[in-house]
Amino acid sequence: IENQLQAAISGSTSNGVNKEVFRQTLVNTLERRLFYIPSFKIYRGVAGLYDYGPPGCAVKSNVLAFWRQHFVLEENMLEVDCPCVTPEVVLKASGHVEKFTDLMVKDEKTGTCYRADHLLKDFCKEKLEKDLSLPVEKVTELKHVLAVLDEFSAEELGSKIKEYGITAPDTKNSLSDPYPFNLMFQTSIGPSGLSPGYMRPETAQGIFVNFKDLYYYNGNKLPFAAAQIGQAFRNEISPRQGLLRVREFTLAEIEHFVDPDDKSHPRYGDVVDLEFLMFPREEQMSGQEAKRLRLGEAVSKGIVNNETLGYFIGRVYLFLTRLGIDKERLRFRQHLANEMAHYAADCWDAEIECSYGWIECVGIADRSAYDLRAHSDKSGVPLVAHEKFLEPREVEKLVIAPVKKELGLAFKGNQKMVVEALEAMDEKEAMEMKATLESKGEVEFQVCTLGKAVTIKSCMVSISKEKKKEHQRVFTPSVIEPSFGIGRIIYCLFEHSFYTRPSKGGDEQLNVFSFPPLVAPIKCTVFPLVQNQQYEEVAKQISKSLTAVGISHKIDITGTSIGKRYARTDELGVPFAITVDTTTTVTIRERDSKDQIRVPIEKVASIVKEVTDGQSTWGDVQWIYPTHSSISADE
Amino acid sequence: IENQLQAAISGSTSNGVNKEVFRQTLVNTLERRLFYIPSFKIYRGVAGLYDYGPPGCAVKSNVLAFWRQHFVLEENMLEVDCPCVTPEVVLKASGHVEKFTDLMVKDEKTGTCYRADHLLKDFCKEKLEKDLSLPVEKVTELKHVLAVLDEFSAEELGSKIKEYGITAPDTKNSLSDPYPFNLMFQTSIGPSGLSPGYMRPETAQGIFVNFKDLYYYNGNKLPFAAAQIGQAFRNEISPRQGLLRVREFTLAEIEHFVDPDDKSHPRYGDVVDLEFLMFPREEQMSGQEAKRLRLGEAVSKGIVNNETLGYFIGRVYLFLTRLGIDKERLRFRQHLANEMAHYAADCWDAEIECSYGWIECVGIADRSAYDLRAHSDKSGVPLVAHEKFLEPREVEKLVIAPVKKELGLAFKGNQKMVVEALEAMDEKEAMEMKATLESKGEVEFQVCTLGKAVTIKSCMVSISKEKKKEHQRVFTPSVIEPSFGIGRIIYCLFEHSFYTRPSKGGDEQLNVFSFPPLVAPIKCTVFPLVQNQQYEEVAKQISKSLTAVGISHKIDITGTSIGKRYARTDELGVPFAITVDTTTTVTIRERDSKDQIRVPIEKVASIVKEVTDGQSTWGDVQWIYPTHSSISADE
Repeated sequence: IENQLQAAISGSTSNGVNKEVFRQTLVNTLERRLFYIPSFKIYRGVAGLYDYGPPGCAVKSNVLAFWRQHFVLEENMLEVDCPCVTPEVVLKASGHVEKFTDLMVKDEKTGTCYRADHLLKDFCKEKLEKDLSLPVEKVTELKHVLAVLDEFSAEELGSKIKEYGITAPDTKNSLSDPYPFNLMFQTSIGPSGLSPGYMRPETAQGIFVNFKDLYYYNGNKLPFAAAQIGQAFRNEISPRQGLLRVREFTLAEIEHFVDPDDKSHPRYGDVVDLEFLMFPREEQMSGQEAKRLRLGEAVSKGIVNNETLGYFIGRVYLFLTRLGIDKERLRFRQHLANEMAHYAADCWDAEIECSYGWIECVGIADRSAYDLRAHSDKSGVPLVAHEKFLEPREVEKLVIAPVKKELGLAFKGNQKMVVEALEAMDEKEAMEMKATLESKGEVEFQVCTLGKAVTIKSCMVSISKEKKKEHQRVFTPSVIEPSFGIGRIIYCLFEHSFYTRPSKGGDEQLNVFSFPPLVAPIKCTVFPLVQNQQYEEVAKQISKSLTAVGISHKIDITGTSIGKRYARTDELGVPFAITVDTTTTVTIRERDSKDQIRVPIEKVASIVKEVTDGQSTWGDVQWIYPTHSSISADE
Repeated sequence: IENQLQAAISGSTSNGVNKEVFRQTLVNTLERRLFYIPSFKIYRGVAGLYDYGPPGCAVKSNVLAFWRQHFVLEENMLEVDCPCVTPEVVLKASGHVEKFTDLMVKDEKTGTCYRADHLLKDFCKEKLEKDLSLPVEKVTELKHVLAVLDEFSAEELGSKIKEYGITAPDTKNSLSDPYPFNLMFQTSIGPSGLSPGYMRPETAQGIFVNFKDLYYYNGNKLPFAAAQIGQAFRNEISPRQGLLRVREFTLAEIEHFVDPDDKSHPRYGDVVDLEFLMFPREEQMSGQEAKRLRLGEAVSKGIVNNETLGYFIGRVYLFLTRLGIDKERLRFRQHLANEMAHYAADCWDAEIECSYGWIECVGIADRSAYDLRAHSDKSGVPLVAHEKFLEPREVEKLVIAPVKKELGLAFKGNQKMVVEALEAMDEKEAMEMKATLESKGEVEFQVCTLGKAVTIKSCMVSISKEKKKEHQRVFTPSVIEPSFGIGRIIYCLFEHSFYTRPSKGGDEQLNVFSFPPLVAPIKCTVFPLVQNQQYEEVAKQISKSLTAVGISHKIDITGTSIGKRYARTDELGVPFAITVDTTTTVTIRERDSKDQIRVPIEKVASIVKEVTDGQSTWGDVQWIYPTHSSISADE
């Protein structure tokens, strides 16, 4: 709780000012260079909708290509691609129609809508920051409110808003009571107006409803994973935090289906020795910090629930750090008991620290059998797996046999509901009923579908345990779900990659994105040193050879000084610049070190390919080719 | 017209039966192997929504990756990524809110909706097929209706439906008059309910509204192209034709911005000698067939409006044929005058022939300045380009100078509207007004914004032509738009790649997809010939080396006969199968020829990579490595 509180009030410290300046410089650069653009800008935009411009779009497609390579290809996952438009029945089964809501208040005069928790949070933070005369007990109270805010019911939020006299921020008008607003974009499928639909709030449901076919496709074998990349939609009440909280975003989700009795993973050994920051429930509750743990230890000590969950935590760590996320600002935080859905076995978020605080970018949850059961129930199609036994096994099975004649006499038209309720008892309930019937001869029994209790007598049902031979086991698989918010990962990557350095003259700060070649929007640029036909010919020839090996690049033949051209591409995070200054050899400059080597023209493409594909490092090629010391360039 | 007619009644010939059988075999295979799945199948699905299952999804991502390589990377296009949720104002400007409709009729009792033109088309086709006693003039009439159906207004459709006594197909109830139904999925942005939005019907608008930023990003230079891949949505009234007419689909669109006075293209020379089937307007009108034309000839003769349009037609041809579309079933059909929007300069569709007839898969249109002007007008932000002159140029400019004092006296409160209307006159109108004012002293002048004509006297406005020195030209660029329906291309690719061949025993027909390696969902499979630990070790080692070079593959270690395993992967279109039958060398089998070569284990990955990347052909490697004649396998 202390830690949630720290996170909640962070940004109010003096450090907060630097963060604001840093973020402003970054955001200016991102918008100016069209990494992203507020959508529909010429119409004054729409809150929570952003376009990726050319370099942002390239970064995004690199991140997604690497995700496909790292997860789908390397793990042999079954990738699917389902529509965004989703009929209501699917999202009723998943619980989204009922529960995918935020609490909202309305300005009672203008009708403007606000998120209730945001208003309360802002009020508490501002009080704590600005009202220095606040008595100690008030400070404690406000800090407590901030810490538990996320758990508040509509009533609790409403009464706090009343108690603190919070009004609409713009008009100071009074506010309505908080009420739930469903965050799904609603629409209508077909022309009749009778088939409500929603834009999916996550991609996972498309995988769950296909479980049966996918299981068959996988040769009826567990475990297997399905994956999907696609758009998801949340009609946020009042989007804030720029690219972090938006109304439409790209999700990449994995649903790994596994036998609930065996959550081992065949490739667990590949990640067992990884060490990184983890923040288990225990440490959060006792006010400690996240700590460096060996993944194998976290699993063997039972901190992480099972091997498969551990395996994916490790794979996510590798994915994020290879993209360029700083290890020191990445932690895996376990959900507290009150954060987790009741059915979840365990849940960890990959959180990345940026100027907004620690941001959840990937959720890795063991959701047990919840989703498949929900769709089985609603659709009537069993979403189950089978384990065939080599030899038949003897098992003790609960047998509930309602005596329909007696039940019919006693309950007439309600007989069917009573029979169903009896048959639906689990082992514990049934054995309790058996004991009561044997001792008292009758028992009160709650029938949900009737909305009342009925009296069951011993003649109406026989309950026993029988030994049976079984040839297979039928069960609902557990689902382990790593879910990636691609936009959030990309924004954090922008923050972790961005730095400034003084220009040659020291009179201005130049912006640099230190993207690894894997994600850089363009891998290299080609500059003729001066405007001259011979050099331009060479540049075009190099360009052709780069295209042939699939390296994205740009030629810049403007007459601008070479220093300025370097600065321009540094600001796009281009890792290598090729400068044509002779017709036989050219220089290659590395962005962060600004070191240059001289290489023959016919070698350029293969060298750039090697270092961008990661087959060689810049250090490797520096060993082979002579250093070029420039006097005319930017350094 | 004759040709439209042929297309409209095709499928009714005896050939039509074979087509149906072919399509049914194909669709069964596609669904059984999960190339695609009707979405939300366990809930009995939703018409017009499909999922791509694992192999379909892999084909799709290969097609998109090649699209990016062929267009975005090779042509240095600016790729953007905009949201699907779009505010109403944008789609009002583009005309979609008003005009993106189909005509619908309702069953007057049940309310079931139908597309009016579908009912009329079905009626005419059935009559022509089944009613052999039809008099000649009736046959001619029905054929004519089929040919001109697409041009019918609501009134014309309604009166034909009444005249022919067409009723609701399922109930035979009478039908409402036809009325327009907007095909966009509507929704609401934010919680207020006051901001209507739509799911975009195309991706193009996201590019147009960003024109200003993209032009700046491109160094304020023309021409340049922007591109976008993404989901688009059309709420079809009653989707038919399986994967061809769906409610959600992936579009890949290019908007190439070009000076309207110079539509040359720097790389036009690369495509000028391509020869393929073209179907110009002339040939369609005179009832001829599509004919083989050299692209350069079609452009130089003015059949294709300009070089840039021609360049993209050529690039689209290369794209589609490299994917595996059969050249003989691909044609470029020019829009007839009545098919084209009034603003379009020229428009060609890449049509692919499949069992449904000739299907429009790519549209390539010169949309002139329409889209940018529409958004300039609506947003008030000028979306224009500048051409700076090296030397100032003397130009004759129209000067319209309203005399505000006189106009104020005459029109009072309406003065502003009159002034604006006068200033908006084009050169022709203005010079006519000048002439009339000089001869008659006054002129009637229609002011749209007032909805009436006013009398303008010579004292109220001075019109003249003046010579001015200009330093730059400001103009609205033309847009040339190639727009790709990715799902349709993929479906046609399925049809063109599918064939059957008899099994070894000749007792059954085996299905094969002859996908080129570029689009094949998996590039190769690895089979240990018999279940045996040594062979499995080798298979795993080969698998690792394939992953290292980025080749997607599958190991199949089931004990099934090798012939059956080959057949299984042929049905997925896997081009190469590696069979482990010793611990030092293995065989590689090519899918279509069923030829096998024997290669050392350490060479396998690099050989498969070479032939899938297209650096070598199968013929090349057959020269190098010994043929393996199998007696145990499927052939």
